[in-house]
Amino acid sequence: MILGRVIGEVWATQKHERLEGAKAMLVARLRRDGIRLVPTGEVVVALDNIGAQTGHIVTVSWGSGARAVFSSPDNRDVLADAAISRIVDGYSVDEAGAGIDVEHTE
Amino acid sequence: MILGRVIGEVWATQKHERLEGAKAMLVARLRRDGIRLVPTGEVVVALDNIGAQTGHIVTVSWGSGARAVFSSPDNRDVLADAAISRIVDGYSVDEAGAGIDVEHTE
Amino acid sequence: MILGRVIGEVWATQKHERLEGAKAMLVARLRRDGIRLVPTGEVVVALDNIGAQTGHIVTVSWGSGARAVFSSPDNRDVLADAAISRIVDGYSVDEAGAGIDVEHTE
Amino acid sequence: MILGRVIGEVWATQKHERLEGAKAMLVARLRRDGIRLVPTGEVVVALDNIGAQTGHIVTVSWGSGARAVFSSPDNRDVLADAAISRIVDGYSVDEAGAGIDVEHTE
Amino acid sequence: MILGRVIGEVWATQKHERLEGAKAMLVARLRRDGIRLVPTGEVVVALDNIGAQTGHIVTVSWGSGARAVFSSPDNRDVLADAAISRIVDGYSVDEAGAGIDVEHTE
Repeated sequence: MILGRVIGEVWATQKHERLEGAKAMLVARLRRDGIRLVPTGEVVVALDNIGAQTGHIVTVSWGSGARAVFSSPDNRDVLADAAISRIVDGYSVDEAGAGIDVEHTE
Repeated sequence: MILGRVIGEVWATQKHERLEGAKAMLVARLRRDGIRLVPTGEVVVALDNIGAQTGHIVTVSWGSGARAVFSSPDNRDVLADAAISRIVDGYSVDEAGAGIDVEHTE
Repeated sequence: MILGRVIGEVWATQKHERLEGAKAMLVARLRRDGIRLVPTGEVVVALDNIGAQTGHIVTVSWGSGARAVFSSPDNRDVLADAAISRIVDGYSVDEAGAGIDVEHTE
Repeated sequence: MILGRVIGEVWATQKHERLEGAKAMLVARLRRDGIRLVPTGEVVVALDNIGAQTGHIVTVSWGSGARAVFSSPDNRDVLADAAISRIVDGYSVDEAGAGIDVEHTE
Repeated sequence: MILGRVIGEVWATQKHERLEGAKAMLVARLRRDGIRLVPTGEVVVALDNIGAQTGHIVTVSWGSGARAVFSSPDNRDVLADAAISRIVDGYSVDEAGAGIDVEHTE
């Protein structure tokens, strides 16, 4: 899974029917900068059925992980290859190790 | 899914028969620059059967998501590993949060 | 699919038998620079059974797309995870839009 | 598999049920710098059921490799698309070859 | 497949049983620099059952390609998502085209 921040939404009238039935969110990938997570310029589009909104930090699952998110009876016909799988409430980043090189251990 | 802009097309006479039956579009990936989406230099090739044209913003689906796009009776024999799944009519990008760091929440 | 240029070939005596039966080509990925496509430093190795040669521009398919290329009776035992799927005869790149930002459309 | 260092954890109350049942760890990818492995800014989220903790060097498996990690009777209902598959006790990096160009061998 | 150079090995006592039974090699990805292939900083971990050693140039296969490498009766229980599929004896890189732009062909 990748970690991202929902930055918006895309809408489309022309799309394959099995890709309808869900909102398509714009998600900016996050990278670590010390003990903070900051947005990169990279964006992906992920389908959402758990209520993610702009500003939320989320995990995006791919392939069968995305299909699992859409496996309930209501969503069974949606074929998602990227889906928001978690709305993140909080996270911790290890302060001590953030900038430390991993030493050769042999 | 990735978000891209159709920038052209490729044509080929030598190709595998199960990869025929669809136009192969050149798609430049988009990244976020503030509240705008701008093209990167990265290009992918995606099959199209929903009428995408040069200049369109589109989503490109991979793997089983791409195969779903080509699952209609007319396209069943096309084995696509990357397909244009949406022609995007519009999008929103969160202005407030565009450049804001995601603060440590622990 | 990615778009690349065949820049050479690799040979190997030690390899898994289901990965034999095809030439392994070195392919340099292409990126867009204005209306031209220019090689990046990134290389991948893709199996070939359609006669690609050094200098050819090709598309490389992955996963089930690669396996489709090797699904003929002659190649059925080759398990390719990356395969050359098209020898590109020509392409167009949109001149007008090549350097244009995609404006916010909301 | 990619190689990373566990730098923290994310928690979420809203998530798909088949993605519950495991801790979600923040993993910073490692790259080589001479004979050392140092963290990049790139982070991924991987599910853990083998007891990885912050500071551990781990391998992250994807797709069916991730599902294998969660294939025991206790975890069968977890659908992981990225999972920590190894806690690395040690590693060696070839000193001699670390900075050497690979010469043209034809 | 990607092309890499084996730069070392990782060892682990805690790992999933279906990921045991094979050595886990550290592989540095190669990129092209003119007619040479030189290591990038990017590393991946790939399972090996064909005898690759530090210094070898290899191809790394993913997904079903990796599983094929481990499909012999001796290795059937190993679930590899990345595997060394070839030990490369030699390669050619096209000198003429190495730095040449691919011209617009329309």
